[in-house]
Amino acid sequence: MKKRIITLLTDFGTKDGYIGAVKGVIKRINPQAEIVDITHDIDSFDVLGASFALNNFYRYFPKGTIHLAVVDPGVGSQRQPMLIKTKDFFFVGPDNGIFSFTYEREDLANIVVISNKKYFLAELSSTFQARDIFAPVAAYLSLGVKTDEFGLPAKECMKFIIPRPESKGKSLKGQIIHIDRFGNLITNFPAGLLEKKKIAEIRVGKRRIKGISLSYFEIKETCSEGSESKGLGALIGSSGFLELAVNKGSAQNLLKAKIGDPARINFK
Amino acid sequence: MKKRIITLLTDFGTKDGYIGAVKGVIKRINPQAEIVDITHDIDSFDVLGASFALNNFYRYFPKGTIHLAVVDPGVGSQRQPMLIKTKDFFFVGPDNGIFSFTYEREDLANIVVISNKKYFLAELSSTFQARDIFAPVAAYLSLGVKTDEFGLPAKECMKFIIPRPESKGKSLKGQIIHIDRFGNLITNFPAGLLEKKKIAEIRVGKRRIKGISLSYFEIKETCSEGSESKGLGALIGSSGFLELAVNKGSAQNLLKAKIGDPARINFK
Amino acid sequence: MKKRIITLLTDFGTKDGYIGAVKGVIKRINPQAEIVDITHDIDSFDVLGASFALNNFYRYFPKGTIHLAVVDPGVGSQRQPMLIKTKDFFFVGPDNGIFSFTYEREDLANIVVISNKKYFLAELSSTFQARDIFAPVAAYLSLGVKTDEFGLPAKECMKFIIPRPESKGKSLKGQIIHIDRFGNLITNFPAGLLEKKKIAEIRVGKRRIKGISLSYFEIKETCSEGSESKGLGALIGSSGFLELAVNKGSAQNLLKAKIGDPARINFK
Repeated sequence: MKKRIITLLTDFGTKDGYIGAVKGVIKRINPQAEIVDITHDIDSFDVLGASFALNNFYRYFPKGTIHLAVVDPGVGSQRQPMLIKTKDFFFVGPDNGIFSFTYEREDLANIVVISNKKYFLAELSSTFQARDIFAPVAAYLSLGVKTDEFGLPAKECMKFIIPRPESKGKSLKGQIIHIDRFGNLITNFPAGLLEKKKIAEIRVGKRRIKGISLSYFEIKETCSEGSESKGLGALIGSSGFLELAVNKGSAQNLLKAKIGDPARINFK
Repeated sequence: MKKRIITLLTDFGTKDGYIGAVKGVIKRINPQAEIVDITHDIDSFDVLGASFALNNFYRYFPKGTIHLAVVDPGVGSQRQPMLIKTKDFFFVGPDNGIFSFTYEREDLANIVVISNKKYFLAELSSTFQARDIFAPVAAYLSLGVKTDEFGLPAKECMKFIIPRPESKGKSLKGQIIHIDRFGNLITNFPAGLLEKKKIAEIRVGKRRIKGISLSYFEIKETCSEGSESKGLGALIGSSGFLELAVNKGSAQNLLKAKIGDPARINFK
Repeated sequence: MKKRIITLLTDFGTKDGYIGAVKGVIKRINPQAEIVDITHDIDSFDVLGASFALNNFYRYFPKGTIHLAVVDPGVGSQRQPMLIKTKDFFFVGPDNGIFSFTYEREDLANIVVISNKKYFLAELSSTFQARDIFAPVAAYLSLGVKTDEFGLPAKECMKFIIPRPESKGKSLKGQIIHIDRFGNLITNFPAGLLEKKKIAEIRVGKRRIKGISLSYFEIKETCSEGSESKGLGALIGSSGFLELAVNKGSAQNLLKAKIGDPARINFK
């Protein structure tokens, strides 16, 4: 029990030592806890990006893993500190939508609004709850403290309304919901929706892409039409959504794309 | 004893593999040592920034933790490699002021100038003491080697003169000593100095801020006067100093501020 | 056996959660494996840079360490997933030259083309072999699975032709092969080649450097001639190659240098 993994996902960066304090607090409460850095480079205040990243990794960890995720522009406001227990995992963080993707996928067994000061640091700041509340709560969880010890149960947690593709005749309208480090544009078309359908073309802005490639490498110079869209292709990415990508390049740069831009699939 | 934590704080970045070598050296000497990354993204040669970051996290770790901190523009010069033992912690790094904030706060029990080559790597470079000297010394410390084994005692270590606020009638003159990843401007006004006083206004450049907010979230559009300073506020930050901040924005960008810029508090 | 170290070197960044998935897969297969982050900040697709970084750290780790290195623009192409066992270490990654420097230095005992699906994730994507193939293979290796269990032996792995300096009368022509985070320019002149020779000058572009400094600190304002090259010097860097460097500055910025730029040494 005591050897539990605690993963960390934040927008704190590392250079100010803030995340160092979070790690110290955890190790002091449970020296046996194993801390695994996921990232501290989420764009400042980008709760949706954090939510998407979390969805990419949480379920690969061993059962019992505690995922601590803090991107928290509302620290000090009325938003509540929250603990979620699912069948296999624990999630600790602010109730601001950061667990939206996870919430959709997991059967949420148990939501607790964290309030028991017994499990907080003795000296509380109003600006750094990751250190003062979330870190100690995660550490005590890793020691085997039961979830209902931390506060009162709640029925719901906040979630973003993650946009779903809209069907319109023979086409499906969606949008870009994430742009990754390589400049790949991840849409909200889930792989499952496309599996048995025959795709005529995928449209983003003025570009048309014919068919879905199997890998980045397979995207050919000729995959798309239009002089400016050389090398643009589409594939099912590792997140389980349709992605627009350029082989060894950045689709974001090629298309000057941003999150929220529309995308469309026309079926045969 | 052997399970001791060694934290790492450097300006090496990670992409060249330098910090990888440091970690390898530690694990080869003590496979039981637990390495905790704090940061490798301190701005190149920014010893003061490193000193400030260190101050933000070191004391949250378990007793006996070894803090390895290397930002070292003077590597290969006459500056000495140093080991400090305080009541609860060990610090290993160059004697260039990197432990200035720590030095102010801790009762320094024991300073040792590292010189015993028995605890160095066999092949010494003159450019990479973190790998060749500091890492093995930290690793042997974690194995239980006594501090006086590493070299001769010294009376002092180098420290920056950390500027203190100056009192002038009903006002206090200070400055910005750190800017964090979120663009928050951390001043040298310690929380303790402000606790029982009534603040009339805080001045930075041409901006005036009325009163202290409890959290970033609480900073209102109307906290400060002047058309360009919308949303600028002040609060006691998690480092224990007065901070100037913008809710969900960057005070650094708003004020075009830099380290050393003056700040003033007028009391009622 | 089960406590083996697995180091991670990639160009994935951290903010999308991809490397989080890699870590989760490893910990689920072998909870005892110790993951050590080297870097996830290799420039996108920079296989040569990754190869150089790997060379800077791999041999400092304990025997039996598994080095997982994935910079993989050809994922999904015909390039093979590969496992190399040397006398002291294991290397897992794509067969695209990423192990070039290592290959030159180590006696390669055993190359295996990874093909045994028993050791892959059940659901395979064609875009994320680090998660689906390399991570589980590394984890099973750490559990003690023998190398020949993973696939068929191969005679060779791909390697870059790392440029060697050319001798020409009393001079040696080389080039810049890596630029590190500090802007130091690392050439392909190995330290061993220079040891017993008397250097008249080192030339890069229009700059002339007289003699080799012992440390960055020792580089003086007067080390080099020409008004624009103030403070430029040369030294034997920690990678074991001749480096061009500026004391507390960036040689890359001073010289507007890039990888592949020529350098020359004239001997007395």
